Amino acid sequence: MSQSIRDNLKRLLAPRHLAFVGGRSMARALKRCAEGGFGGELWLVNPQHESLEGIPCVARVADLPYAPDAVFIATNRELTLQCVAELAARGAGGAICYASGFAECGEEGRQLQQCLLDAAGDMALLGPNCYGLLDYLHGAALWPVAHGGKQVEKGVAILTQSGNFAYNLSMSDRSLPVAYMASVGNQAQLGVAELMDVLLDDPRVTAIGLHLEGLKNVPGFARAAHKALQKGTPIIALKTGVSQIGAELALSHTSSLSGSDALYDSLFQRLGVIRVSGPVSFVETLKAAACGRLPAGGELIALACSGGDAGLIADYAERNQLNLPSLQQEQVTALADVLPAYANLVNPLDFTTAIWGDEAALQRMLDSTMSGAADAAMLVLDYPAAFTGERKECDLLLGLYCDALERHGKIGFVTSAFPELLPASARERLHSHGIAALQGVEDGLAAWGRIVGYQRNRQRLLEQGETAQVPLCPQALTGESQLLDEWQSKQALRAFGLPVPAGVLSTPERAVADAARVGYPLVLKAVSAQLPHKTEAGAVALNLRDAAALEAALVQMRQRIAAYAPHVAFDQVLLEPMAEPPLAELIVGIKREHDFALALVMGAGGVLVELLKDSVSLLLPTTDSAIRAALLNLRSASLLQGFRGRPAADLDALVAAIRAVADYACENAGHLLELDVNPLMVGARGTTAVDALIRLGQA
Amino acid sequence: MSQSIRDNLKRLLAPRHLAFVGGRSMARALKRCAEGGFGGELWLVNPQHESLEGIPCVARVADLPYAPDAVFIATNRELTLQCVAELAARGAGGAICYASGFAECGEEGRQLQQCLLDAAGDMALLGPNCYGLLDYLHGAALWPVAHGGKQVEKGVAILTQSGNFAYNLSMSDRSLPVAYMASVGNQAQLGVAELMDVLLDDPRVTAIGLHLEGLKNVPGFARAAHKALQKGTPIIALKTGVSQIGAELALSHTSSLSGSDALYDSLFQRLGVIRVSGPVSFVETLKAAACGRLPAGGELIALACSGGDAGLIADYAERNQLNLPSLQQEQVTALADVLPAYANLVNPLDFTTAIWGDEAALQRMLDSTMSGAADAAMLVLDYPAAFTGERKECDLLLGLYCDALERHGKIGFVTSAFPELLPASARERLHSHGIAALQGVEDGLAAWGRIVGYQRNRQRLLEQGETAQVPLCPQALTGESQLLDEWQSKQALRAFGLPVPAGVLSTPERAVADAARVGYPLVLKAVSAQLPHKTEAGAVALNLRDAAALEAALVQMRQRIAAYAPHVAFDQVLLEPMAEPPLAELIVGIKREHDFALALVMGAGGVLVELLKDSVSLLLPTTDSAIRAALLNLRSASLLQGFRGRPAADLDALVAAIRAVADYACENAGHLLELDVNPLMVGARGTTAVDALIRLGQA
Repeated sequence: MSQSIRDNLKRLLAPRHLAFVGGRSMARALKRCAEGGFGGELWLVNPQHESLEGIPCVARVADLPYAPDAVFIATNRELTLQCVAELAARGAGGAICYASGFAECGEEGRQLQQCLLDAAGDMALLGPNCYGLLDYLHGAALWPVAHGGKQVEKGVAILTQSGNFAYNLSMSDRSLPVAYMASVGNQAQLGVAELMDVLLDDPRVTAIGLHLEGLKNVPGFARAAHKALQKGTPIIALKTGVSQIGAELALSHTSSLSGSDALYDSLFQRLGVIRVSGPVSFVETLKAAACGRLPAGGELIALACSGGDAGLIADYAERNQLNLPSLQQEQVTALADVLPAYANLVNPLDFTTAIWGDEAALQRMLDSTMSGAADAAMLVLDYPAAFTGERKECDLLLGLYCDALERHGKIGFVTSAFPELLPASARERLHSHGIAALQGVEDGLAAWGRIVGYQRNRQRLLEQGETAQVPLCPQALTGESQLLDEWQSKQALRAFGLPVPAGVLSTPERAVADAARVGYPLVLKAVSAQLPHKTEAGAVALNLRDAAALEAALVQMRQRIAAYAPHVAFDQVLLEPMAEPPLAELIVGIKREHDFALALVMGAGGVLVELLKDSVSLLLPTTDSAIRAALLNLRSASLLQGFRGRPAADLDALVAAIRAVADYACENAGHLLELDVNPLMVGARGTTAVDALIRLGQA
Repeated sequence: MSQSIRDNLKRLLAPRHLAFVGGRSMARALKRCAEGGFGGELWLVNPQHESLEGIPCVARVADLPYAPDAVFIATNRELTLQCVAELAARGAGGAICYASGFAECGEEGRQLQQCLLDAAGDMALLGPNCYGLLDYLHGAALWPVAHGGKQVEKGVAILTQSGNFAYNLSMSDRSLPVAYMASVGNQAQLGVAELMDVLLDDPRVTAIGLHLEGLKNVPGFARAAHKALQKGTPIIALKTGVSQIGAELALSHTSSLSGSDALYDSLFQRLGVIRVSGPVSFVETLKAAACGRLPAGGELIALACSGGDAGLIADYAERNQLNLPSLQQEQVTALADVLPAYANLVNPLDFTTAIWGDEAALQRMLDSTMSGAADAAMLVLDYPAAFTGERKECDLLLGLYCDALERHGKIGFVTSAFPELLPASARERLHSHGIAALQGVEDGLAAWGRIVGYQRNRQRLLEQGETAQVPLCPQALTGESQLLDEWQSKQALRAFGLPVPAGVLSTPERAVADAARVGYPLVLKAVSAQLPHKTEAGAVALNLRDAAALEAALVQMRQRIAAYAPHVAFDQVLLEPMAEPPLAELIVGIKREHDFALALVMGAGGVLVELLKDSVSLLLPTTDSAIRAALLNLRSASLLQGFRGRPAADLDALVAAIRAVADYACENAGHLLELDVNPLMVGARGTTAVDALIRLGQA
């Protein structure tokens, strides 16, 4: 994104004047801005009417008194193109293109979208094929239809690929403070990455929520997410296309590409992006992030007015890695003084209905519980229906809770067992105190747990150094691919520092003579790029103890290969010393997802591959500390750490070996299609790649 | 439960007259019944007032014109006791005791509760320490405080151990049709099992929801759940105390016992009880079960008006094992005729906003999609806020959807992306058509998936035969326990049919001579109940190939045991033939949870124990087909099924071996504390218990 576009985008995001181009619906959109509190100038552009819905029109962009900061264009695609050109010439800030029929509609549309992009030049351009922008900081709804929500002083920014999602979210009754909501459409110019980058410069944007089918600009996204991590602004992503069919839908739905979902997990983990699974967790996690300060740690003091709620809290806290520290003796003593004898004085605390509505007792209870060292407090509170007349006791408790948090300088949140039983009035009161109102105790504790996890990971990720490195996004390769044989593959990787056995490349004829340079017992392998599956071909003989055994193995191997693959010449063999039994076997490989990522995959090898399905992926480039952390995150990591009294693996050597594979991949990113080191034998001293395979494509 | 109590409980659940015993709050409770539509007689019993809140009082139970079917007693615990005795003498149907201070409050309370139980005799008794009963079939709110909800013709029954949960649930804005809601309190007489049993006789009860900390009567619960499974009435359980701290809370909160949570999973799986994790999934799953017919299978045709929603559907369908079958060619052709060219004609279908509000087009779209063979249809629909004036298009679509389902004889449900965007009016309209209104697409599809899973499991469970067997609930054992040595343990299990190696019990002195009867290579083990950890003690020598090796091993073993455990006499040894390498090693054991269950635990053995943490538990007694299904449910089951080209395990022999362990445990349930067969060597032909250990207690 050029500096000019960036400057123009800032005008679009803080407009002094808005223009709407189109018919009656635009007159209504203009009215909504006027009613919604937008303080600047508003114009309606329409060549066919003098006025619409009582709003006077100007005929053309050229007739506007000066270049508008923000324009919403709701005309057909051809007129949109013309309008964008006129606005760019006039020096407008940014234009939002509602029209569809561009890159989402085949080749002709793709060309038209390129024309649109060219016409925009340095002007900021959102869309086409999008609902536009809701700006609740300035009351500017550059938006074709109705919307819920109201002006805020600060809040989250939401970027979505679905206008309908944005529409529904704006209507949702959750009290999420939203600063900006943008439907990004085809992302011809401004995409998720570019918007994130600029939004992060505004301190009023407390968190960013992304609803994605895929990313168009992974490097840009990574840079923006790194910036967010440095600033401590949480990014919360609802990425769809987890399922196979979902990924196919995404391909056909917009022109953005859905990469392999597992690599999105790797990308998000690398960058500290919080991934959520649905609309509810999206909104609740955004609320937990947006309201007030973020918690320093995961210790909670939890309050409820029933044992049933306390039971739910205990279960959900454990599931979300939140701790409920025991009450200190002085807290127990103080609580015993105010609560009835049958109260169970533990954390989570059921403070019982005995003190319900009793202001003095509630306050003493709150002071006692909040005197501890927990990072945050939580309260479960469900408002009964209004007809009961029993809401005032809830309001009393809510007020006392807000005051107590303030008095004790504590962070806190409130949640209800049933999401809908925390009414809007209570939520807004809490939010005005910087206290998150999280709807539903299960979703609420999960949301809080995600924010605590973010806080826990943030420093580690920044120190690990990976987040500052922009992931490689390899281009698609065409033409034929070439397989390197085992010897070539090992030599190529050895040059980057991967330890391989001290083998000798020989021929069947010279093998016995060359064996002396290797020593017995040894391993004999046929070497050919046409034999990727050596074991099936009978092209491996292990543990040969002397020359006689080697000779016999050579004879047998020639016969078996001739039978298995008659076209393959048996003219090269590899002699290697027999490896010691390892502590663990790993598989290390490279996965290329065109236009998305080059990923280093590490997994448990041998018999565990299929049983454990235990692997981790890191996008490249990566760092040694990230490799080490990933290895220790394997489910079979215990095998590396002194399993059942055996010695621990040489982790430094292992990391260095994997780093060699990663370095080779980065250096050859332009044409590396596939790489497999299997097995990588991990010992107490050193690590050895016993087999390797590389496939290269043409750039 | 005696037949008399049962009959009286039926009176309590379909009362012709209600009496409330207590003060002003009872007058209000009575008024709520009168206003809420209860058609029978209502009395207020209070000795101190002639009338309360305008309601005339009678002084004593004896003054009532005849014995009431249902009585709510809201007096202190002493007066409650007296009142229950009077009511029982009078021949009342059932009494609900609101007072606390019974078994939840120590020994004195426990005694008082026993007196209460005795006083009730054959009268039905709910509580004490409970909020009572909301009966929305008859409009009888035997309940001390306000409640939401309204009369229904049929609906779910909810039983909870938390009055507050019931109170909040009644206030929840989810349109769950509730027939009965009972807060069970201390369950002195009527517990969850007894209530379930009688509620299942009422065809108006469409499903049963349980909110539990634990079960007091496992056999009764199992009988009732079996009855429910036979009738096809889903049981949905929200069981808290998953976490350690949650389990401790449950212990102290009421007088019911929380068993080990994993065994609850086993119990629920055995009985086809659907377990949910929170209040939202509880209510939504109940709605999916309660509205209309249950789906025959998991195939869905899914409709949405945006690609964003379609993406969510695809992800959640896959996660919940629901299938989205491809559209048939004729469906695609028909849809192409009505939808715009850019529409993606797949399932889930984004029918696009192009036909929004177009009655004819929507109807054609619905007819085309519902012409397929899917088991059910679903629609995602979010209502915008009322102020937009844009709800009528939603109502139009909803009506067309209801009609289309009826026309095509299809089951269906509706869900919204955001839970709160399916308003009460829409939900009620759907429910009146027998169509579930599930709030939130993520929770909704999860709920539907649970019901489909229930349907899938039901027939299999009934055929498996386990559900008809009442689980054993072993009593607590006191006094010292006794460990059987390996030889004794093996012989005890062999008597029930467990294959053990053809070994010979010998002495160190006679071992070489006896070895001839076993044959080389053999295994030598020291035998002593004081050496449970033989490997650590050096008390096992494997693969001894001849007499010399055996002699050397005997000498070394004597030395090592003397060093490791000087007090243990080395006077017995076991000689066994060396086992063949197995296809897999299993661990099979028995876990005793006093008062709850005797469970058969099967898990992956050897190195996989710690890596996979792979085990399944079945409560005893069990059946061969349940054992087989459980084995094939192990994560490492592939090892038994011809892993990587190896032969498959002899599954019949394996099931028979495990059955022998189960039989031994059932026969010795009275005093078996612990049993471990580790490893159980599983071969292509046969299975052998290589080591075994039994610990017995005193009954």
